[in-house]
Amino acid sequence: MKTVLLTGFEPFGGETVNPSWEAARRLDGVQLGGARIVARQLPCVFGAALAALDGHLAELRPAMVIAVGQAGGRADISVERVAINIDDARIADNAGQQPIDRSIAVDGPAAYFSTLPIKAIVAGLRARGIPASVSQTAGTFVCNHVMYGLLHRRGPRAGFIHIPYLPEQAAQHPGAPSMSLDDCVAALKLAVELALAHRQDLAVEGGATH
Amino acid sequence: MKTVLLTGFEPFGGETVNPSWEAARRLDGVQLGGARIVARQLPCVFGAALAALDGHLAELRPAMVIAVGQAGGRADISVERVAINIDDARIADNAGQQPIDRSIAVDGPAAYFSTLPIKAIVAGLRARGIPASVSQTAGTFVCNHVMYGLLHRRGPRAGFIHIPYLPEQAAQHPGAPSMSLDDCVAALKLAVELALAHRQDLAVEGGATH
Amino acid sequence: MKTVLLTGFEPFGGETVNPSWEAARRLDGVQLGGARIVARQLPCVFGAALAALDGHLAELRPAMVIAVGQAGGRADISVERVAINIDDARIADNAGQQPIDRSIAVDGPAAYFSTLPIKAIVAGLRARGIPASVSQTAGTFVCNHVMYGLLHRRGPRAGFIHIPYLPEQAAQHPGAPSMSLDDCVAALKLAVELALAHRQDLAVEGGATH
Amino acid sequence: MKTVLLTGFEPFGGETVNPSWEAARRLDGVQLGGARIVARQLPCVFGAALAALDGHLAELRPAMVIAVGQAGGRADISVERVAINIDDARIADNAGQQPIDRSIAVDGPAAYFSTLPIKAIVAGLRARGIPASVSQTAGTFVCNHVMYGLLHRRGPRAGFIHIPYLPEQAAQHPGAPSMSLDDCVAALKLAVELALAHRQDLAVEGGATH
Repeated sequence: MKTVLLTGFEPFGGETVNPSWEAARRLDGVQLGGARIVARQLPCVFGAALAALDGHLAELRPAMVIAVGQAGGRADISVERVAINIDDARIADNAGQQPIDRSIAVDGPAAYFSTLPIKAIVAGLRARGIPASVSQTAGTFVCNHVMYGLLHRRGPRAGFIHIPYLPEQAAQHPGAPSMSLDDCVAALKLAVELALAHRQDLAVEGGATH
Repeated sequence: MKTVLLTGFEPFGGETVNPSWEAARRLDGVQLGGARIVARQLPCVFGAALAALDGHLAELRPAMVIAVGQAGGRADISVERVAINIDDARIADNAGQQPIDRSIAVDGPAAYFSTLPIKAIVAGLRARGIPASVSQTAGTFVCNHVMYGLLHRRGPRAGFIHIPYLPEQAAQHPGAPSMSLDDCVAALKLAVELALAHRQDLAVEGGATH
Repeated sequence: MKTVLLTGFEPFGGETVNPSWEAARRLDGVQLGGARIVARQLPCVFGAALAALDGHLAELRPAMVIAVGQAGGRADISVERVAINIDDARIADNAGQQPIDRSIAVDGPAAYFSTLPIKAIVAGLRARGIPASVSQTAGTFVCNHVMYGLLHRRGPRAGFIHIPYLPEQAAQHPGAPSMSLDDCVAALKLAVELALAHRQDLAVEGGATH
Repeated sequence: MKTVLLTGFEPFGGETVNPSWEAARRLDGVQLGGARIVARQLPCVFGAALAALDGHLAELRPAMVIAVGQAGGRADISVERVAINIDDARIADNAGQQPIDRSIAVDGPAAYFSTLPIKAIVAGLRARGIPASVSQTAGTFVCNHVMYGLLHRRGPRAGFIHIPYLPEQAAQHPGAPSMSLDDCVAALKLAVELALAHRQDLAVEGGATH
């Protein structure tokens, strides 16, 4: 049976939980679409996150990888289109590092596009009543770092999904949107199913004028 | 046993559901804090909404009334502080009416403050991990109309709570925040409990600089 | 010749300028529509602001008063519809006071509506290419305090206008909208003209659904 | 004397002006930093915009190119970091084309980074009181198309700057932020000066966590 690796991050930025890990770990061991999900946590640390990822890839030899991260302030499930070859940290990572305009892979290309069917995932989530959209930027912090590094390994189909704060986090950030853990778990499960089912992406619009 | 009247609205503005009614009706018949909740739906129509409310007040003689409405675009449970004596409709109501700068009660005061413990409700919701805040305006549409009319009757303790879109609605409004129905139901149940438990409000800040 | 009193505030909240005073003082002495504008600065202090206002009213006996304040984060000229009888300070004022849920006038009504032609002002500004809208809340800080107190005196026609950060302020608050000082000055000048010209307001929509 | 090519776009999306062209054309012929600015308008059309650009590059042989576009809804001058190799049009361009997930250059890399000193430009603008920030995405419409195509030609130093609506545009989009034409012109002039003065960018943070 094929393995789908689903990664989440440890908490960062003063939070005590990270919704990406809370959601991913609830899917550990779940079987769907002829595959088994294995969930692993990554440190929110430049470099160390990719080293941990390498270990998981070597051990599990997954057929697909979906890395998941927290996007505090975003309102929906955002499926990332592209990762760029730059670390530029607005805040320090969990090891105190704050790189500025540093290449993730010195000889790597400027960017990689997700090899997941991002439009099919967004359309499928919306059809099931879960707010979702294509995102044109994964930022320049550890999330983008992991997405770029993951795609730079040129291994299995892979991509990145950002999820909102949990309600318990948003309760501490007045005005911030959130999504329930149940909906986050359902969204990730459905994203795995959709990604397994669509080798080709849908030809539907998911752009931004700027 | 005391009755708490919880009202929700019918859908409006092109939506097929209204989260206020979906949440309220799930609490119909629930007993808590020595009271029993009765849920009733109001039409999203100026005038008719208050006529329906009058019928419910006469029939039920509730000890407390919490009216609930949908605030598409808001991210949290917003507990309204004040209702103002004006109808100014940006869109038509469900009967096609679109009043402009019309008084709700010709001889009424310019506004009424909620007689619910709004700070205690916000603090209690946040303590349970539900995003919430005090709102300084209930708008000028049917929600404000019902809140003003309710308080103008000078009956039992009463107020208004706005809730976000449900996820299934936000899935059709890219970028809009939402809250799960379970969390909306939990929030309203907790709000009733907190309102019954606090005759006096908490002396904590809930203001806006503008 | 009639006098129009235009007030602006001193800086607060860590800012070194307040756009309301920067704009108002540029109109001091300007004559238009058969009236002369007199600009005066108010302290950003609960109580003291109204005491200063009383002095200006007694001295100038204006035919109209427009109080102006800074709304950091808002993008346009917002013409306030209503002031409510409550002080609830999210931050301390310039004298260190931070009242919570205190009435501005113990025996006053819950609110006062602006006696300026708010729709005519918004329509007139937009027609001249200046972004503007009706606002349903002036907050619960010193701006609302002054607007309420001003209308509670039941003197000349009066109201309140909030203006955005200046560009130089927004440059320190990444992502915040701003408006140039020239446009703020033009907006206030036009607002005075429109208010003098319209005894009756326009019957056009300026509401909010929530 | 060196030439700096400054391009702006024709109006699109229902607008009657485009602030990028309004600002750029006011700088046509201006000399600064040992260079002369030449402003040219580009059509808001996939393909045709790059064909027009090629003509201008062949004619002018500029030492530097800054392409400018409108970002309705953004509040500040946003200096783009990266362009990606994809056209995905949310709306039709001015020739009615609406490509979906089409490569701009079939054999091109996934992205190009701006070769302008983006951090120095942002810091310099802020120091002069003009709101500015680094942007991590130029979208997937004609702006990104031109930025990618421009950098794919591997000619002179080049990049892209997005500017907000003009106030007269925002007056038709209630709630939208704007920037005065004078400030837009000053910003672009200063950006040219800063880009000419900084061969190396500043090592200051300009990232996003997501």
